[in-house]
Parts: sequence; C-alpha cells; structure tokens
Amino acid sequence: MSLLKNVADPKDLKKLNKNELNEVTREIRERIISVAKSNGGHLSSNLGIIETTVALHYVFDFSKDKIVWDVGHQCYAHKILTGRNAAFDKIREEGGISGFCDKDESEYDVFSSGHAGDSVALGLGLCKARDLLGEDYAVVVVVGDGSFVNGLNLEAITATDYKPGNFIVILNDNGMSISKNRNGLYKLISKSTIKKGYINGKKAIKKVFGNSFVTKGLIKFRRFLKRMFNKNYYFEEFGFKYVGNVNGNDLTSMIKILKNVKTGAKNNSVLLHVITKKGKGLDAAEERSDLYHGVGKELSICGTPYSARIGKALNECIEKDKKVVAITAGMKDGTGLDVVEKAFPDNFIDVGIAEEFAVTYAAGLAKGGMKPVVAIYSTFLQRAYDEIMQDVCLQNLPVVFCLDRAGVVGADGKTHQGVFDISYLSGLPNMTVLSPTDPEETEQALKYALSLKTPCAIRYPNDKNAMKLTAEGFRSGEWETVSGGLTREKKKILILAVGPRTLKIALEASNDVCGVRVAAVKRVKPLDEEFLNSANEETIVTLEENVLSGGFGSAVLNYYANKKIRKNVIVLAIKDEFVDYASVESQLTKNGLSVENVRNIIRENI
Amino acid sequence: MSLLKNVADPKDLKKLNKNELNEVTREIRERIISVAKSNGGHLSSNLGIIETTVALHYVFDFSKDKIVWDVGHQCYAHKILTGRNAAFDKIREEGGISGFCDKDESEYDVFSSGHAGDSVALGLGLCKARDLLGEDYAVVVVVGDGSFVNGLNLEAITATDYKPGNFIVILNDNGMSISKNRNGLYKLISKSTIKKGYINGKKAIKKVFGNSFVTKGLIKFRRFLKRMFNKNYYFEEFGFKYVGNVNGNDLTSMIKILKNVKTGAKNNSVLLHVITKKGKGLDAAEERSDLYHGVGKELSICGTPYSARIGKALNECIEKDKKVVAITAGMKDGTGLDVVEKAFPDNFIDVGIAEEFAVTYAAGLAKGGMKPVVAIYSTFLQRAYDEIMQDVCLQNLPVVFCLDRAGVVGADGKTHQGVFDISYLSGLPNMTVLSPTDPEETEQALKYALSLKTPCAIRYPNDKNAMKLTAEGFRSGEWETVSGGLTREKKKILILAVGPRTLKIALEASNDVCGVRVAAVKRVKPLDEEFLNSANEETIVTLEENVLSGGFGSAVLNYYANKKIRKNVIVLAIKDEFVDYASVESQLTKNGLSVENVRNIIRENI
Repeated sequence: MSLLKNVADPKDLKKLNKNELNEVTREIRERIISVAKSNGGHLSSNLGIIETTVALHYVFDFSKDKIVWDVGHQCYAHKILTGRNAAFDKIREEGGISGFCDKDESEYDVFSSGHAGDSVALGLGLCKARDLLGEDYAVVVVVGDGSFVNGLNLEAITATDYKPGNFIVILNDNGMSISKNRNGLYKLISKSTIKKGYINGKKAIKKVFGNSFVTKGLIKFRRFLKRMFNKNYYFEEFGFKYVGNVNGNDLTSMIKILKNVKTGAKNNSVLLHVITKKGKGLDAAEERSDLYHGVGKELSICGTPYSARIGKALNECIEKDKKVVAITAGMKDGTGLDVVEKAFPDNFIDVGIAEEFAVTYAAGLAKGGMKPVVAIYSTFLQRAYDEIMQDVCLQNLPVVFCLDRAGVVGADGKTHQGVFDISYLSGLPNMTVLSPTDPEETEQALKYALSLKTPCAIRYPNDKNAMKLTAEGFRSGEWETVSGGLTREKKKILILAVGPRTLKIALEASNDVCGVRVAAVKRVKPLDEEFLNSANEETIVTLEENVLSGGFGSAVLNYYANKKIRKNVIVLAIKDEFVDYASVESQLTKNGLSVENVRNIIRENI
Repeated sequence: MSLLKNVADPKDLKKLNKNELNEVTREIRERIISVAKSNGGHLSSNLGIIETTVALHYVFDFSKDKIVWDVGHQCYAHKILTGRNAAFDKIREEGGISGFCDKDESEYDVFSSGHAGDSVALGLGLCKARDLLGEDYAVVVVVGDGSFVNGLNLEAITATDYKPGNFIVILNDNGMSISKNRNGLYKLISKSTIKKGYINGKKAIKKVFGNSFVTKGLIKFRRFLKRMFNKNYYFEEFGFKYVGNVNGNDLTSMIKILKNVKTGAKNNSVLLHVITKKGKGLDAAEERSDLYHGVGKELSICGTPYSARIGKALNECIEKDKKVVAITAGMKDGTGLDVVEKAFPDNFIDVGIAEEFAVTYAAGLAKGGMKPVVAIYSTFLQRAYDEIMQDVCLQNLPVVFCLDRAGVVGADGKTHQGVFDISYLSGLPNMTVLSPTDPEETEQALKYALSLKTPCAIRYPNDKNAMKLTAEGFRSGEWETVSGGLTREKKKILILAVGPRTLKIALEASNDVCGVRVAAVKRVKPLDEEFLNSANEETIVTLEENVLSGGFGSAVLNYYANKKIRKNVIVLAIKDEFVDYASVESQLTKNGLSVENVRNIIRENI
C-alpha cells in the first residue's frame, strides 16, 4: 500500500507514471475488498469502476470541475482518492464516512446521493448555472446502466434544449442494473457492445476526437458517428455526441479517451459509453455480482428474515392463486422475490429501477383482474408517491405494497431511511397501512392484504434479529396487548409500539414496572378504534420509526382530539432531521427510541 | 343535432354512413364549444381529437376492448359518444359529469384520470393481466405529445420486455404539449411530421397493413418501416411497430387506418402517430391554443390574481438579481410565468410535463449558484415528492417552490385537488412551508423565500376573488391576529386559519361573537411557536384546505402534546376521501369548512 498512502489529494495522482497508476488501482481494489469484508457495502459496482475513477481524477481537476455520481454506490475509489483513504476503514460506521456521496464529508462530493436517476438532471442544472453565471468548468456525470433508464433520467436525457457544452455523461455499463436489466433502451445500447469491439486509445478515438475535431467542425464527426455507431446515433438527436464503447477497466486507454473527450466536449454534451466488469477482481462477486450488489459484514449475502418470509409466502399465494403476481424494481434479491422468479417466472416481473412504472403497471394489472404485489424498499417507493395516489388509491385498486427496509436502516444512512412511509401513505384515501411485528405476522399480513379489495401497504424493517414478541398473530391487524394486560389494577401508562424494534424497546423498558401496559400496533391506518376507546390509561406513549409529521402518534392525537378525550399523549418519533449512517440502535437512541428514554418517560408519568 | 341525439351508445355509430359520421363530428364540435362557453374546461385538445375519437368508437368495441386516455383532457367527444351527451350540459358541475375520465361515471372510462404520463403503463398492465388470464380484447391508449415525454411514460415505453400483442398506443401529436414542447424526443418524432406527408388509407397503409401482413410475417414489414420512417424506427427497438403519420382530423382516413391497425396489431404493440389540430374549429383556440388549454366560464383565459402576482413579482426579482431563474413544467400560463418568459427568456425554463426533472434540475441550478423558483400546481408537484426530499431538502439547497392551486380546486375535481401538500412537504427536514393570505402577501412571501438559504415552499389557492383580510403583511410568516385581538377580556376560542378562504370563513363565522379571536397562519412549517405559547384560549380551532393526516392541525396537536399543554383542539381539515368536482364552496362545506359549521363549533365551545 505504499503508493496509495501518498495520494492525499487527486493532484498527487498526476505525478505518477503509467505503471504507478496501475499499481494504485490494484491497491484500491485490495483495499475495497478488505474493508467491505468488515464493514459491508456495495461491492460489485465499486470494484468495476476503479480504473475509470483513477482515469477521471487523473484527467480532470475536480477541485474545479464537478463530478456527480448517480446513486453513489460506485464512489469508493473516488473517496479513497479524495483524501478519505484513512477514513475508509470506518466507512458506513458512525463517526466514519458515508457509503454514498455526502456533501458534508468532502468538497469532492457535490451532492449527497443514494436514489437512482437524478445525476443527469443535477449535472444539467449545474451546467445551466455555470453558463448563466459565465463560469468555466467541466461537469462530469457517472451513471450506471440501471439508473440510466430511470424515468427521471430519461426526462433529463430527452430534454434537448438544455444540453450545454462541457458536459460529459459517463454511462457505466456493467451489463446489468442491480439485477439483470431487461429494459429496451438498455438493450438498444448494449447491441453495439455485443457486435463491436472496444474503441481504444490508438485507433478509432483518433478519428473521433482527433486534433482536427474542434477546428474542422462537427459535421464530419457526426456523419462518422452515425456510420460507426448506427444503433446509438439517436443520442445525438437528444443533443449528445456519442462515444463508445470503451473498456472502462483499461486504465491507459481510459486516460487517453478521457483526455480526448475533455477537449472534444468543450462545446458539446458527450455521452461516453464505458463497459466495466461488475465485481472485477473478486471471483465470487464477478460470478454472481447481483447477489454481491449490497453486502453485509463478512460479505454475507444481504437479506432479512422478513424479506425471506415474503418471498416464501408469495410462492405459497401464487401456488394457490395464479392471479397473484409479484413486481419489484431492480431489487429482487433484497426484497426476497428471487425465489418467486425461480418458482413462478410468469408471475414475477422486475421492471428495473423504475418505481413509478412498477406502481402504475401494477394498477393496470389490478384493473385487468390480477392481484399485484409490489415489493420495493420504503425509501425508493417515495419515487412513486403520486402514482400510488392517482393510479392506485384514486382508482381504489387492490394493489399490495410490501415496504421492505421500513424504519431506520443503519449503515446506509440518510438517503435510505424508511422513516417517511407512514406519513406519505396515511394521507392517501382508501389506503390501509399494516405493520406486522415479526416475519410470521408479515406473512399473515400479506395474506390479509391479498384478501382486501382495496390498496394496502405492509411495512417491515431490515431487522436481522427477528424474534416473536406477540402471541395472537396478525389477524386483521387488531392491536395486541403484549404485556401488562393480565393484572386487574388500572394501568397508568399505555405504550403503543409500531414495529418490532420499538415493541422490543417498550417491553424491555416496562419490564420491571407495574402500571404499564404495552401493545403492538399492527395496523397504522385505519387505527384500531375499539382498542383506543377502551384504553383507560391516563398517559399514552407512542413509539414509531417514522417522522413526527403525519406519523402514527399524530394520528392518535387526532383521534383523541376528535373524540374530545383528553389524555397525556407522548409521541416518540423520528426527529425532523435526516438520520445519518450509524448502527440501528444508535439511530433509534438519538431519536429517543431507547430503553433508557422510554424508562425515563415511564418514571416521570407513572 | 339530429344525428347525435340518436347515438345513445357507440354501437349506434356503426349504423351510420360516411356522411352521417362526418355530420356527427360536426355536431360534437358544436356541442363542445357551446358547453365549454358556459362550463369552462379543456377546449383545445378536445376539439382536436373529435374525428379520431369517432373513428375509434366506430372501429373498436369499447364495451369489450379497453381505451385509456392519458390525462383525459381530450375525452369530451368520448363522453358524448358513450351515453353522456345529455349529461354533458353539466360537465364539471356538482351532480353532473367529470371534466376528466371517471371510473365511477361510465364503464367506458377504465380509469379516473388527470395526471399526465400514466396511460402506457396502465395499458401495459391491462395487457399483461389479459394475457395471463387468457382473455381477448384490444387495449388502446391515447396519449398527447406533451404526456408522451413524461418520465413515467418513458419508463413504460422503454421497458420492452413487456410489449404485448393487441396493444395500440395512439400518439396524439398536436404540435405542443400544454405550451410549446421543446423536448428532444418530441422533436425527433416531429421531424417526420415536417418532412413527409400523411399516410392515407388508400396507398401506403395497404403496404403497411395489407392482407398479407399477418401471414407473410414481420420481417418484410419491419424492413419496410425502417426504410419508410427512418427517424422513428427506434420505436421498434422498444417493441413497437410504428405507423405514421396519419391525419387525425380526417375521419374517413382514420377509420381505414384504424381498421388496418386493429388487424395488424393482433400480435403486436403498435404506435400510431396521429397528427391533429389543437383547437380545431374555433378560430381563437386554433390561433392561441396554449391559452385555450384550460378555460374558465365564457372562455375567459384562466389565471388567478395569485399567479398573476407571482409572475409580476418574479420579473421584479430577476430585474434586481439575475441569479433568480423561473422554472415550470408545461404550465407557464397557469402559473403566471408567461410574463417571465417574455421579459427574461434566459431566466425562464419550461421543461414540459416533467415535474421530476424540473425539481432535480432546480437542485443542480441552486448548487451551481442560482436561485431557482419552481412554479408547479400543488397536485402535480406530488410527482416530484422524492426529488424534493432527496435532491433539494437533503442537500439543503435554496430552491423555492410556488405551489399554485393549493387547496381545493373546484370543477377540476378529484385528480387535481391540492389538498396533500402541507402533508407531503411538512415531513421533509429543512423545508419551510409558507401560506400567504392574499396576492400581496404572496409576493412578499416569494421575496422572503428567496432571502432564505434553504428549501422553501409557498402555497396559494386558485381563488379568483382574492381580497385583503390582513393588515401586517407577510414579514417572515409570523401569524397575525386578524380579529378579536383588541378587546382586553380573555378570549375563549382561537381560530387558526391557513389560507385566505378559510380565513374568510373564520372571520365571517366569528363576526358577531365575543370571545373569539381569529388569526392568519402564514407559515405552516415551522409553526409560530411564540404565537402558540402566548395563546391563552382554552379552545383552538384549526382550519385548513389539506387532509387531516400530516396537516397543520396535527402539527398544532403535536406541539401542545410535546409541551404538555392541554387544550381543546378542534381540527377542521379535508376528510380522508378524494374530493369530487363541485364548486369550491361546496367542496369546502362538505369538509366542514363552512361559516355555518364554524359558527356551530363556536357556539358549542364558547
């Protein structure tokens, strides 16, 4: 690791020769694998982009130029090269650095990132501002093929009038999005990949961005491109000069190409089509890079007892009723739907990273007589808020939403927190929101949801230590008194906990205290009014992994206010701040959702 | 109107001869113009699509086949032909029929519609369901060029693997979306329009969909299309057979073409590119069809005192500071930004119907040093919920959102209600939400928002009768006691009203009553805590044109609960149901927001 240690800033790269640069990429690869083994993270995509990243920092000066990473799950090499090599040991750990780009972490991270598809729009905005302000810098966007076909990105790509000069979009094509990409646009792009070899720095590139490029004008260049890359020339119609394919894992070639592109892009938007090998350098990741997309510690394949149960339950449901169809948006492994694809390929659809399409497509399926189940992470389903409202709830269609990773998510941090879904779903007419407290109840909730004729969402966390805390099962989501309900004396405090983790906290905090009853809230909307009406405790404490505004506690306050029942209601919810990467426990504690805090509240109110 | 009266069902059309069908289109055109004059509505697009609609109902049987209208602002002829000719007199009126498609109104309206871009995804869902269930019917989608380039639609179009047979997308190309379309994809499509004449029923179509089409296979057909429609053959890469252009205002030709397409589409997805003249048949609408897109009664050009003031204020701001840039998404006239385009074209951007791109692009602009103001209707900004959160709030960028048509909207009905924005915005960290009470305060709020370094949203209604109800002006959004504040005796009731219309209701209801104070809530987030702390009234009544969940009243409840201050808080908000078309007053009354109801509440609590 001798060379890498001397790269404190990207400027240091420029002092190195070809062999040294190659050695740097080797060291970065070693470092990423070693740290990912202990801290987890996005492995495959980060391993594939190392050479391209080194070349980018070698050719551009991102203290002046700006680089925007789509999603940011390919920014590890970028972090290591931009002064964060030492801190990289503590990636995704509290007090360490983020697993995505983070604007508060480094000047080199222009935006905090995590949701797919926003990079081209952000880049175009930067360019427009630069041009309006008369400034001069290059804007480089790096976007994977999975994000490339996201609707937000497609809007940005097709909006030609706004294609500026000095704008370079690097399409990092590693042949799949998160799982295998079946998208038409991607297929179109990849055709040239299959048929033709790479452009390399010595031959074709000279023709594309020869010295005469700028002076001799664009007409010849365009004709050349149209002949050469017939399948891709429509990018030119959208205002892009298309250059590709290039081998993104060939450092020397990438440096030459980027130098040429940098010059050629002075007055143009350029789309540079780079082919990289996902998971490069780690055998297991190369072979099954979809599984290694996001890994936990020790490179264990990610998945939770909840998502596993959902996959298994869906197979049972489809076995009995072929009208059930499972849909995901580029997350089949994470959501547990991989087993559905295997068992019932006709009843499984992965639309790629296109959450909006997933939801509206499900609405069409439901109207046509099917029973669609859409499994998407809580944070990513935000992208389809309007579609859930207009295409599902307004039509009152029986679409089931499985919101995986609801609540705080731990190491993934700010951009991935599932702490808004109760709010964005509860305001929607016709919507039912369920919150089972263990995997078994999650299966029961799924079956209950499929029995409804109306929209229904099931939220469950990424809790790896799922345990059974309740006795009654899910039924129709009636709330269940889990402790403190047997003795006869009047209780003083009722704790209403949404989701298994806060329920566990409530049980622990009230364990040794008389006068406290704890109940599991299994259905957030509609509330269990019978339960609330019969609750005679003077103090109600609500616990939820969701923001205060529009959350469960607010619904309880609204309910009692409407009934003119005056109680001491204490709402513990996620604060009005974005929740940074840390352990789940730490994230909960910072938001008052800890055994200690609940115990204090009990003491104060008993 | 002799012929049209005999068309009680589309089946009756099939009995008519060519001349009679032409007479029917003439009668429909007359009827639409006459009713629009008294009831308002979407005029231009409805006038352009009449012949195509008659041809569709003549060729297909939509009691079995399914037709999906994107947005639905072109469905008037469809309504008139499907048993709603008599009811058409009461279009957009309470107890009448909707101005958009409405699933509860007719079997022929498959979905309730209103938001752009969902039709292809819905159609694909229907097809998939049909095929999985082994059913047999055609699915026809009609989508305008404006909606065609929306991100949701682009996701659907590019997702090739899901292109089924018997699926026909009619691209209704009337040369502009709501205002002039500057989109690259649209430009690409329109190139063939300009260069080539129409295909007509007699010649070219025979080649495209001759008798030999199905039997002789697709290879020849594809080659033919590629030669003939060079610019558009990439639709084939997305799984569509492209047919175009055809003259959508030539009834005879459209019938022939649709018959051929119907046969040809048996095992294919077909994109039929139809050119129509927006506003056809009404001179003023043909000339300025953008202005006539949506009209009020008596064909008055739509616009509100609020939007007019925003446009004027933006021009003043840009005059002083060239960093201010105004962005809209296909709604420049409705949002009042037309005057900005005229005065400062460099500082104005209309991205077309691409709300997501508008917001993320604004984030890029803000990061690059500009001060973007995004003006979009409250209901359409829902489409960018995730972008507001991730690209603006998480980055804590100074983007100003002007939410026009916030609150209930009257005749436009369910799909257009701006009654969710307080909820979807208040949950977002870093966001400020302002609610000025008249146009002057709206201007002041805009200037205040531009002075912030953080995200800020300003919501204002489509109130045409704006009047001044307050004295202090907007300042920083501090709440203002508007009545009942002068006398010394302790008040019993405090009414907190969000927005001008509920403020007016509160003032009227409390007019003759002692002991009631009325205040204007000019900032919804953060709350005016000083005001709340000093309020010593026992009963607080909150009024807002927003749903209960996550609304302003809930925030007040949360505030007092957190402070352990026990008050009688009565929250009046929009019920948990979609609000149907009716007058604004009727919509408010149904949700308890009436003088009478507030007066009753005062009586009960004084």
